[in-house]
Amino acid sequence: MKFLRYGAPGQEKPGILDNQGQIRDLSEKVSDLSGAVLDPAALAKLADLDVDALPLVEGTPRLGPCVAGTGKFICIGLNYADHAAESGMAVPPEPVIFMKATSAIVGPNDDLLIPRGSEKTDWEVELGVVIGRTAKYVSEADALDYVAGYCTVHDVSERAFQIERAGQWTKGKSCDTFGPTGPWLVTKDEIADPQNLKMWLTVNGETMQNGSTKTMVYGVAFLVSYLSQFMSLQPGDIISTGTPPGVGMGMKPPRYLKASDVIELGIEGLGNQKQVARADT
Amino acid sequence: MKFLRYGAPGQEKPGILDNQGQIRDLSEKVSDLSGAVLDPAALAKLADLDVDALPLVEGTPRLGPCVAGTGKFICIGLNYADHAAESGMAVPPEPVIFMKATSAIVGPNDDLLIPRGSEKTDWEVELGVVIGRTAKYVSEADALDYVAGYCTVHDVSERAFQIERAGQWTKGKSCDTFGPTGPWLVTKDEIADPQNLKMWLTVNGETMQNGSTKTMVYGVAFLVSYLSQFMSLQPGDIISTGTPPGVGMGMKPPRYLKASDVIELGIEGLGNQKQVARADT
Repeated sequence: MKFLRYGAPGQEKPGILDNQGQIRDLSEKVSDLSGAVLDPAALAKLADLDVDALPLVEGTPRLGPCVAGTGKFICIGLNYADHAAESGMAVPPEPVIFMKATSAIVGPNDDLLIPRGSEKTDWEVELGVVIGRTAKYVSEADALDYVAGYCTVHDVSERAFQIERAGQWTKGKSCDTFGPTGPWLVTKDEIADPQNLKMWLTVNGETMQNGSTKTMVYGVAFLVSYLSQFMSLQPGDIISTGTPPGVGMGMKPPRYLKASDVIELGIEGLGNQKQVARADT
Repeated sequence: MKFLRYGAPGQEKPGILDNQGQIRDLSEKVSDLSGAVLDPAALAKLADLDVDALPLVEGTPRLGPCVAGTGKFICIGLNYADHAAESGMAVPPEPVIFMKATSAIVGPNDDLLIPRGSEKTDWEVELGVVIGRTAKYVSEADALDYVAGYCTVHDVSERAFQIERAGQWTKGKSCDTFGPTGPWLVTKDEIADPQNLKMWLTVNGETMQNGSTKTMVYGVAFLVSYLSQFMSLQPGDIISTGTPPGVGMGMKPPRYLKASDVIELGIEGLGNQKQVARADT
């Protein structure tokens, strides 16, 4: 199943894609795509729905982030060997964890705001893992039982804020609109192997990233288990699992986003995003 | 005014202290201490309440975190010159920002869980700043207009997880129960100068930290303005502004918390916390 949220920012309703790719309203069935609704058992029950009998949503509404109530937006750094190399850093001996502000989360096609004073706003297509039920001290073998599904995440980064502005990456990762999420929350049953998904990103039509989750250093099950040793994970938490090579910072010379650039990205089976960059005011 | 939240975890009700230090139930007046309720203008209106006419809460209920709906729990690193020195680090040229998971937030007197595998769980008393309305690109001169009030925060830290486990501090700062917050949200009018508050922490009755916000490097107004250049701040967001000297890591030899240790801490005018450490299971 492909779940989504549609409508104006802050007023999104839950929806589901039908077999024709049309949006069906799900708000009579669930309050939102958050909390207990994301439990894998609860999601499995929704598979019995007659999707074609749900109200058809006309037109092409704005899409919001594909899950609500995200308490933690956890990112994994340097999780593709080739990306670590282009960043001039070694693959870490265990996952590097950092957080993006949840206030950075926006819909998949919302404008990307280049913050005031930014000269190094960069792109990163990433596989997002959505937690479905509380996970603490879980084993790698059991880890996927706690996952609701997957989504496309754009981990937008301001490299000067991240690296040149006094330690810790938070301030270069948390700017408003730096976390487009969606279009869909795709349930696990539709993704045969999360470690074998093509992923790509273009800027103004030119391919920048063209990778696969196959080259991820620490895989999804390991990461969920690993993170749960440090903190409990809750329904709606999103883990963004790192980016393959091809970010702007790694180019010679480096290349960064400017107003009116068009960024398109996607992951096999998880859907595409499209953002237009503009200066924040 | 001193606001608080009382009751079982996840079921807290809003309350206010009366002049006798008794808890009065505020749930007929506000839904919770979150969102629009925290707007300084909304809080100012509550000053007209006849507090003694509100229902008296009998007994000594558990206190929860003093605000709800915290989307971001932002911390400032190395913000006291003496603490930077004891940590063997330089005072940074601009504030170091990192995040604690909001799932680490607990009540001021809840048990402190020492995570599995931890050998270096450490204490840090900190002045917490609670955001009252959305702040973005605000000036230092205007910054306090966006603040609802202040509270005591315990920024519990696992030093091995923070420093020895592959970069970025998140994993040593975000463990469950690592963010006791409260007892009270104290409104700005009660705090004449947030940069002149005594703060202290004891372990088993022995004084470990005994400082003042006077020696903070970057003050509250500067921090709110600074952070708002990188991300919007929302009502309920908490900024924990760094710790004075006296953490366990800085001792010779270092000293860390173990099960059954009793930690007490407080800040002048903001109230005290008391936690008992126990092993997480």
